[in-house]
Amino acid sequence: MTREEIDIIIREAIPDDAEQIAAALQQVGRETPYLVMDGTGAAIEVEELAQNLAELYDSINNVLMVAIVNGKIVGTASVSASNKRRMEHLGEVGISVLKDYWGFGLGRAMMDSLIDWAAESGIIRRLELTVQKRNQRAIQLYEKVGFQTEAVMPRGAKTDDGEFLDVCLMSLLID
Amino acid sequence: MTREEIDIIIREAIPDDAEQIAAALQQVGRETPYLVMDGTGAAIEVEELAQNLAELYDSINNVLMVAIVNGKIVGTASVSASNKRRMEHLGEVGISVLKDYWGFGLGRAMMDSLIDWAAESGIIRRLELTVQKRNQRAIQLYEKVGFQTEAVMPRGAKTDDGEFLDVCLMSLLID
Repeated sequence: MTREEIDIIIREAIPDDAEQIAAALQQVGRETPYLVMDGTGAAIEVEELAQNLAELYDSINNVLMVAIVNGKIVGTASVSASNKRRMEHLGEVGISVLKDYWGFGLGRAMMDSLIDWAAESGIIRRLELTVQKRNQRAIQLYEKVGFQTEAVMPRGAKTDDGEFLDVCLMSLLID
Repeated sequence: MTREEIDIIIREAIPDDAEQIAAALQQVGRETPYLVMDGTGAAIEVEELAQNLAELYDSINNVLMVAIVNGKIVGTASVSASNKRRMEHLGEVGISVLKDYWGFGLGRAMMDSLIDWAAESGIIRRLELTVQKRNQRAIQLYEKVGFQTEAVMPRGAKTDDGEFLDVCLMSLLID
């Protein structure tokens, strides 16, 4: 695939995306050692996911975006926030891209969209995320869009072999 | 109430505690400005809670403890951990005491019990918690039992008046 052939769309997910999103998330879980999900565990129920997507679409402080390349969903980016008033301004960021599509700038494009969405939400005032310290490529991306490391958490995660990993807590204030 | 009259028990919660725990948590939500819960929102269903307590009691990396003073549940302390393998060793601590019972050392007693439980669990290897920076009494307690501040998070919470608050991330490694 040459870069010229790529047609990229970043947009909010809708209920009809449920099947493709479930498949993408399961694949990411199998492919990456950097996330909590590991490809095992309960398969995501498509119908339940479609219902969740409808609720996310209507939420003022939650969002799920998808990256679509040549018609296929190959990445997701989300902001999750509480409905509790004391925490409603606090958005937790999650982002994933299928391995075959790493290096095409999809992560950056989705992060830019998430930050724009947060700024326009009028309610999100802090974005935060956690990332394994060994995942330097992701950390560099987050730094490029303005995130700062607030803490390095020892034993914040562990590998499938039981080795403990440092995890960085990063944040970006939204004004 | 003089200190001599107090009979204190700290123990793991059982399903029969559900009604008293629900009442205590609701009261705490109304009384304290330091927690996420604020006394509004869906009341806790006693039956559902009893079911949860049964699951917690059987869990190897989750626990809910109660502080009982003269037969009444006046405080709770919990460790919540994921069933995902990559995060199963990571316990999030939550603790609450009814206002009338502040200053009697219940928080300290429950924290000691939680830490002992974590050390004996064989699976929990890091305890973490978040606490509003203005809640200095709680922070001093956590420091006394060994927790260290890893980060001060700007806008980590907000008051009911919309004022942003710093929140401390604290952790304790369990070996």
